[in-house]
Amino acid sequence: METANELEAQRKLLIKMAVSSWDTQYARITKLLDSLTDDQLLSATAPGRNRGIYLIGHLVAVSDSMRSMMGWGDKLYPQLEKIFIKDPDSPGAPMPPAPEIRKYWTAVHEEVTRRISQMAPADWLARHSAVSEEDFVKEPHRNKLNLLISRTNHQSYHLGQLIYLVNT
Amino acid sequence: METANELEAQRKLLIKMAVSSWDTQYARITKLLDSLTDDQLLSATAPGRNRGIYLIGHLVAVSDSMRSMMGWGDKLYPQLEKIFIKDPDSPGAPMPPAPEIRKYWTAVHEEVTRRISQMAPADWLARHSAVSEEDFVKEPHRNKLNLLISRTNHQSYHLGQLIYLVNT
Repeated sequence: METANELEAQRKLLIKMAVSSWDTQYARITKLLDSLTDDQLLSATAPGRNRGIYLIGHLVAVSDSMRSMMGWGDKLYPQLEKIFIKDPDSPGAPMPPAPEIRKYWTAVHEEVTRRISQMAPADWLARHSAVSEEDFVKEPHRNKLNLLISRTNHQSYHLGQLIYLVNT
Repeated sequence: METANELEAQRKLLIKMAVSSWDTQYARITKLLDSLTDDQLLSATAPGRNRGIYLIGHLVAVSDSMRSMMGWGDKLYPQLEKIFIKDPDSPGAPMPPAPEIRKYWTAVHEEVTRRISQMAPADWLARHSAVSEEDFVKEPHRNKLNLLISRTNHQSYHLGQLIYLVNT
C-alpha cells in the first residue's frame, strides 16, 4: 500500500480535480454570459422552453443555496429562490432586470470561489447539512465535495441549453 | 494527520463519488432515450440545432473513444468517429438508423461499466494515453479519473439539450 504521505497527496489531487471541474463549468458559463446581450438573455433557449435569464437566475439561486448546505452562511439573495427555483419560468412573472441578474451571478460565484479556497481536504469529506448525522454514517459519500460535483453537472446541463441562445 | 488506512478509505470514497456521478448521468440519458420514439430522436433538439440521433451518436462515439485513452482496447465502432465527432449534423448526411444507434449506446456503455468495475484505485490515478509521461509528471491531475469526470460533464451538457426532445 502507498504511504500516508502519498495517500495524503492523492487526496489533495482528487479534491483538486473536482474543484477544477467546477471552476471550468463556471468559467464557461461566465464567458457565455459576457458574450450575450440582454436581449439574447430575454429570449427562450428554444421555443416554449426556459429563457436565458431564467436559467442564469436559476443557477445563481442554486449556487446561493449551497451556502447553508456547506455551512458557509446564509443566502446572499434569498428572494431568488421563489422566482428561480420554486416557480417555473413565465413571461408574465416579475423578474429582476438582466443587469441585476448579471451582478448576482458574479457576487454569488465570487463568494463560492472564496469559500472553496478556504476549504481544507478534511472539510470536503464532512457531511453537508442536507444529510443527517445518522445517515452520514451509512452514506459517507454524501459529503460537501459530492455536493459540489452534483452542482457542477447541474451547471453543465444548463450550459448545454444556454448555448442555444448563441446565433447559428 | 489521518492514518494510511483512513486515507486509503477516503481515496476509495472520492473515486466512488466520481464514478457514481458518471453512472447517474448515464442512467438519466438511458432513461430518456428509452422514453423517446425513433421519430423524436430524428427531430432537432431546437430549430437549426443538432438532432437527437446525432447527439446520442456523438455521446456513443465519445464514450467509445475513451477506450484507447483508458487503455481498455480499441474502439468497438470506429466508423462512428467521422459521422458523430468530425462531421457536424446534417440532415442529408448518411447516418445509421435509430434502432442501430440505440444498440450502440447500450453496447458501448455496458463495456464502459464493465471496465470501470475492474479498475483499482491506483489505476484511476494513472495517466491516460492522451498525455505524455513528461507532462504527467508536472500535471498529475491529467489521470484516468479526470477523463471520466470530464466525460461526465460532457454527458450532462448534452442531456440538457436532449431533454428538449420531450414534448412540452
